[in-house]
Amino acid sequence: MEKLLVILTFSGAIIALLFAFIMSRRVLKFSEGTDLMKKISQSIRKGANAYLKRQYKIVIIFFGIMFLILSVMAIFKLLTPYVPFAFITGGFFSALSGFIGMKIATLANARTANACRDGLNKGLRIAFSAGSVMGFTVVGLGLLDISVWFFLLKFVFDLSPEAITSAMLTFGMGASSMALFARVGGGIFTKAADVGADLVGKVEAGIPEDDPRNPAVIADNVGDNVGDVAGMGADLYESYVGSIISASALGVAAFHSLEAMALPMLLAAIGVVCSIIGTFFVRTKEGATQKQLLSALSRGTNFSAITIGILSLPLIYFVLGKSNWPIYFAILAGLIAGVLIGKATEYYTSDGFRPTKNLAATSETGTATIIIGGLSVGMLSTLLPIVIISICVLIAFFVSNGANDAAQGLYGIGLSAVGMLSTLGITLATDAYGPVADNAGGIAQMAGLEEEVRQRTDALDSLGNTTAATGKGFAIGSAALTALALMASYIDKVKTIDGGLEKIADLSITNPTVLTGLFIGACLPFVFAAITMNSVGRAAQSVVKEVRRQFKEIAGLMDGKTDPDYASCVDLCTKASLKEMILPTIVAVVVPVVVGLTLGCSGVVGMLAGATASGFLMAVFMSNSGGAWDNAKKYIESGVHGGKGSENHKAAVVGDTVGDPFKDTSGPAINILIKLLSMVSIVFAAVVVSFSIL
Amino acid sequence: MEKLLVILTFSGAIIALLFAFIMSRRVLKFSEGTDLMKKISQSIRKGANAYLKRQYKIVIIFFGIMFLILSVMAIFKLLTPYVPFAFITGGFFSALSGFIGMKIATLANARTANACRDGLNKGLRIAFSAGSVMGFTVVGLGLLDISVWFFLLKFVFDLSPEAITSAMLTFGMGASSMALFARVGGGIFTKAADVGADLVGKVEAGIPEDDPRNPAVIADNVGDNVGDVAGMGADLYESYVGSIISASALGVAAFHSLEAMALPMLLAAIGVVCSIIGTFFVRTKEGATQKQLLSALSRGTNFSAITIGILSLPLIYFVLGKSNWPIYFAILAGLIAGVLIGKATEYYTSDGFRPTKNLAATSETGTATIIIGGLSVGMLSTLLPIVIISICVLIAFFVSNGANDAAQGLYGIGLSAVGMLSTLGITLATDAYGPVADNAGGIAQMAGLEEEVRQRTDALDSLGNTTAATGKGFAIGSAALTALALMASYIDKVKTIDGGLEKIADLSITNPTVLTGLFIGACLPFVFAAITMNSVGRAAQSVVKEVRRQFKEIAGLMDGKTDPDYASCVDLCTKASLKEMILPTIVAVVVPVVVGLTLGCSGVVGMLAGATASGFLMAVFMSNSGGAWDNAKKYIESGVHGGKGSENHKAAVVGDTVGDPFKDTSGPAINILIKLLSMVSIVFAAVVVSFSIL
Repeated sequence: MEKLLVILTFSGAIIALLFAFIMSRRVLKFSEGTDLMKKISQSIRKGANAYLKRQYKIVIIFFGIMFLILSVMAIFKLLTPYVPFAFITGGFFSALSGFIGMKIATLANARTANACRDGLNKGLRIAFSAGSVMGFTVVGLGLLDISVWFFLLKFVFDLSPEAITSAMLTFGMGASSMALFARVGGGIFTKAADVGADLVGKVEAGIPEDDPRNPAVIADNVGDNVGDVAGMGADLYESYVGSIISASALGVAAFHSLEAMALPMLLAAIGVVCSIIGTFFVRTKEGATQKQLLSALSRGTNFSAITIGILSLPLIYFVLGKSNWPIYFAILAGLIAGVLIGKATEYYTSDGFRPTKNLAATSETGTATIIIGGLSVGMLSTLLPIVIISICVLIAFFVSNGANDAAQGLYGIGLSAVGMLSTLGITLATDAYGPVADNAGGIAQMAGLEEEVRQRTDALDSLGNTTAATGKGFAIGSAALTALALMASYIDKVKTIDGGLEKIADLSITNPTVLTGLFIGACLPFVFAAITMNSVGRAAQSVVKEVRRQFKEIAGLMDGKTDPDYASCVDLCTKASLKEMILPTIVAVVVPVVVGLTLGCSGVVGMLAGATASGFLMAVFMSNSGGAWDNAKKYIESGVHGGKGSENHKAAVVGDTVGDPFKDTSGPAINILIKLLSMVSIVFAAVVVSFSIL
Repeated sequence: MEKLLVILTFSGAIIALLFAFIMSRRVLKFSEGTDLMKKISQSIRKGANAYLKRQYKIVIIFFGIMFLILSVMAIFKLLTPYVPFAFITGGFFSALSGFIGMKIATLANARTANACRDGLNKGLRIAFSAGSVMGFTVVGLGLLDISVWFFLLKFVFDLSPEAITSAMLTFGMGASSMALFARVGGGIFTKAADVGADLVGKVEAGIPEDDPRNPAVIADNVGDNVGDVAGMGADLYESYVGSIISASALGVAAFHSLEAMALPMLLAAIGVVCSIIGTFFVRTKEGATQKQLLSALSRGTNFSAITIGILSLPLIYFVLGKSNWPIYFAILAGLIAGVLIGKATEYYTSDGFRPTKNLAATSETGTATIIIGGLSVGMLSTLLPIVIISICVLIAFFVSNGANDAAQGLYGIGLSAVGMLSTLGITLATDAYGPVADNAGGIAQMAGLEEEVRQRTDALDSLGNTTAATGKGFAIGSAALTALALMASYIDKVKTIDGGLEKIADLSITNPTVLTGLFIGACLPFVFAAITMNSVGRAAQSVVKEVRRQFKEIAGLMDGKTDPDYASCVDLCTKASLKEMILPTIVAVVVPVVVGLTLGCSGVVGMLAGATASGFLMAVFMSNSGGAWDNAKKYIESGVHGGKGSENHKAAVVGDTVGDPFKDTSGPAINILIKLLSMVSIVFAAVVVSFSIL
C-alpha cells in the first residue's frame, strides 16, 4: 500500500510536469512576430527577470534567517530535525512555480499577439497553453514535493504517520512565506505601475491605455507577469500543497492510518489526470463569439470537475473502506462550493448582471457615489460565499462525523478543500491565461498592430476577467477551508506536545483568551490590507512623479518622436515593491508567535478562527469591489452612460484605480495570510507551549 | 438594602432629569436673533418635527407587531408576561431621549448663532447647555426606566433576582430596536441631504457650504438634528441601559445576590452626580483659543472620570464586600480603555497628527489615491482599539475571576462597560453640542451674519469634531464590551431553559455550529454596512436630481432673487430615509432567530462572537476613515496643498463625501446592531431551544 501510494502520487507529479513541458514546447514553436514585437516582449522579459532575481535575493536572506531559527529550535528539541529542510523545499518549489509560470507567460505574450493576427482561435490556443504550463507546473511541483518527502520520511527515516505529517506541515510554512512575498511584492509592483500609468497617462495626459508614449507602460506589462502570474503561481502552489498536507494530517489524527493520510494525495493525483483530459476540450472554431469562447473554457473545467466528482466515490470506497463512504459527500461539497462561490463572484462582478450594471449607473452622480457603490457591492457580496462555505463546512463535518468523532468531521473539512482544488491544473490554466492575453493586448497596441488584432486580444482578455472571477472563488474558498483544517491540525499538534493538553483544554468561545485572540485575529486582515494598500499608494505616487517628470523633461515624447525611459519606471517599481513586501511578511510570521507567547495556545486558536472569518470576508469584499469597479468601467467604455471620455467614465476610472490594489494586492494576499498564520503557529507550537504567559 | 437601592437609582434619575430641565431653561432664556434667523430655525424645527412624527408612525407599527409576537410567545410560556411591556417601555424611552435631545437642539441652534455675535464663550455655553440637556435626559430616562421596572418586579410582583434581570434584558431589546430605527433613518436622512447638497452645490455649482441658494441646505440642517442628535440620543440611551442591565444580569449569575445586581445601577447613579459637577468646569474666558476651548471641555470630562474612578472603590467595597474589591480594577480598566480608544481615534482622525496630514498630502496625486489612503487609515486604525479592548477584557475578567469562577470574570467585563459609560451625562454633552454648533454655523451663513460670527461657530464646530472622536471611542468601546456581556447573559439565559443546558454544552470554537455561526455573524456587519450605504447612495441620488432640477427650472435662483423649494428636499429625504430604515432593522431582528433555528444555541453564540469582533472592527474602520477624510478636507481648506477650490481640494471633497455614510450612517448603526443581535437572541432563546434543528 505505502509503495503504491508513493508511486501513484509521484506518477501524478511526473505526468503533470511532462504535460506542462509538452505545452511549453507547443507555445515556443510559434513566432513572436515583427521585430518591434520581439523587442517589446524582450523588454518585458528583461524587466520581469530582473525583478524576480532581486526578489529572490531578498527572499534568500529571509529563508536563511528562518532556517537558522528553525535549526536552533531543532537543536533544542522544539522541532524535529527535518523541519528546517522541509521549510526550505516548500519555499523553493513555491518560488519555482512562480518562476516557470512567469517565464512561459513572458515567452507567450508576443506569440499570442502575433497569433491573433491570424485569428482568435489560434490566439486562444497559445494563451491557454501558456496558462496550462503554469497550472500543471504548480500541481506537478506540489505533488513532487509531497511524494519525495513522503518517501524520505517513510522509507528512509521510517517515521510514524503522525511524525510524517507533522514534518510535512512545515514545508507548507515555507511555501506560504514564499507565496506571501511573491503575492505582496508582485501585487505592489503591478498595481503601482498600473495606477501610475493610468493616473498620469489616461487621466492627466489623456493618452490611451498601453500607449507607447507612456513611460510606465512596460512596467505595467512587467507587473502583469510578476504579480498576476508569478505571484499567483506561488500563491496557488501554497494553497494546493497546504490543503493536501493539512487534510493528510487530519486523516492521521482521525483514523491513525496511512490510508486516511494517503487519500488527499491520491485525490490530487487523479485530479491531475482529469484536468489534463479536460484541457483537450478547450478549443473553439474561428469567429467564435465571446459566449462560445467562454463555453469552450467551461467545457474543459466542467469535464474535469465532473470526472473527479465521479471517480472520488470508488476511490474513497477503496481507500477508506465501505463504512466510511459518506465522506465522499465532503469532497463533493467542496467541489460544488468552489463552483458556487465562483458563480457568486461572477454575479457580483460581471457587467452581465445587475450589481455591476447598477454600479455603472452611479457614475452619473459622480465619483463619490461610484466609490460608495463599489464598496457596498463588495461588502454585500460577502453574504453568499459565507453562506456557501458555512453549508459546505457543516456538510463536510457531519457526513464525515462517523461514530460521532469530531476528528473525522474535521478530516471531512480538510478533504472538501482538497476536493475544491483537485482540478487546480485546469482551473489555474483558465485563470493564468488572462494575464497572457492582457500582455498580448499591450504588445499589439505598442507595436501598432491592426485594430482587429487588438479587438481579438481584448476579447480574450475580457474573457479572462470572467474566468479569473471563478478562479478567485476557488482560491478564496479553498483558503478558508484549508485554514480551518490547519487550525484543527494546530490543535492536534499542541495535544502531542508535553503539557500541551491542558493549554488547549478550554477552547470555549467565552474563554477570554480565546475571545481576545479572536478579536486580534479578526483585526489582522484589516491591518494587513491597510499596510499593503499603503504600500501600493506610496509606490504608485513615486511612479506618478516619475511619469510626470518624463512627460515634462523629455522633449518630443508626446509627439512620439522620442522614446520614454521605460527602464527607470521598471526599476522604480522593483525597488519600491521589494522594499514594501518585507513588513507584511514579518508581521504574518511574528504575530502568531507573539499572540501565542502572551495569550497561550487557546489564544492562538481564537486568533486563527478570527483571522479566517474576517480574512475570508475581507478577501471577498476587496476582490469583488475591485472586480465590480473594473467591469463597471469596461461597461461604460462599451458606450453606455456617456461612454469613453465622458465625466461618468472618469468617475469610473477612479473607481477602477481604487479597486486595483483591492483586487490584485490586498485581497489575494489575505488568502495567504490566513494560512501562513496557522502554519507559523504549528511550527512554533512547542515554543508557545513551553514559554507562554497565559 | 433593596429599598435603598431603588431610592438611590431613582434619585439619580430625578437629579439627572432635573438638571436637564434647568439646563433647557437656561438655553431658552436667550434670544433667537433676527427675524430671518428665527425663520430659518423654525424651518429646521418644522422639518425635524415632521420627520420624527412620520418616523414614529412607522416605528409604532413595528412595535405593535413585535408586541403581538411577544405576547403570543408569553401566552405559550416561552416568555414571562412582563416581557412585551418591558419591550415597549425600552422603545418608548429610547425614542423620548432622541426626541427631547432633538427638540432642545433645534431650539438652541439659532440661539447659539446669535450668542456668537456677542462672543465665543457665550456661544459655547449655550451649545454646551443644549448638549447637557441631551446627555442628562438620556441617563435620567435610562435610570428611570431601570428603577421603575426594578421596583415593579421586585416589590409588586416579588420576583427572584434571576427573573428580574431576565425581564429587564428585554427592555434592552426595545431600546435597541428603536435606536436602530433612529440611527439608520436619521443617518440616511442626514447623509443623503449632506451628500446631495455638497455634490451639486459645492462641486457642480461651486457655491459655498450652507449657501441659502442651495435647495438642500435646510434638509442638510434638519439632517444634523434628526441624525446626529435624535439618532445619537436613542443610540446612547440603548448603550447605557444595555450595559447596566447586562452587567446586572451577569452579577446575578455570578453571585446570586441582589448586591451584585445593584452595583451597576449604583455606579451609574453616582456617575450622574460626578457628571453634573463636571459640567460646572466647562467654561472659558472670552477670546479663548481652540486649545483653551478644548481644555475647558476636557476639564469637565476628566474631572467626572477621575471622581467616579475614585468613588467606585469604596462603592465596591461596601456593596460586594471586602474580598471582592479587586473587581474595582475592572471598572477602572473600562474607564481608562474608553479614554484611550478616544485618544486613538483622535490620533487617526485629527489633522494635528500624521495620519490625517499624510492623507491630505495624497490628494496631490488625485482622487483615487486619497480614497485608497483614507480606507487604509481606517483599516489600520482598528489595531490600537482592538488591542486596548482586548487588554481591558483580560484585566476585567482576571481581576474579577475570584476563586477561579468564570461567571465572576464575565461580570467584570460587564462592569467595565458600565464604568466606561458611567460619565455618559457629560461625555454625551460634549459630543451632542457639536451638531448644535454645526447648525448654528449654517444659520449664521444663511442669515448673512458677519464673517466673525461664522468664524466663531466654526471654531465651536471644529472642536465638536474632536470631542465627537472621543465620544465615538466610548460608544464603540462600550458597545463591544456590552455585546460580550450580553453574549454571556445569553448563555446564562439558555442554561435556565429546560433542555437548554445540552444545547449549549459544546461552545468550543472547533464545534462546526459555533464556527459557522462565527462566520455568519462576522459577515453581518459587512452586509449591514452595505445595505445602509446603498440606502444613503439611493437617497442621495434622488436629492441630487431634485437639486439639479431646481437649479435648472427655478428662474432667478442662482442670482438669489428667488427662494428655492426647501420643503421638497426635506420631504424627499424624509420619505427616502423612512423607506430605507425598515430593511436593516428587520434583518437585525430576523437573522438571530433564523441562525438559532438552524444552527442552534451554540451557533447563536458563535454568531454573537463573530458579529461583535467584526462589528467592532468595521465600526472603527468606517468611523475613522470618515473622520480622517473629513479632517483632511478641512486641513486642505486651511490653506495647505493648494487650499480651497484647488484640484486637491476637489479630491478631498470626494473623500469626505464617501466618508459621510461611513462615519455617520453605517459605522454608528453597526454599534447598535451587535447589541440588538444579542438582545433578540436572549428574547427568543426559549423558541430556539425548543425548535432548533441542530
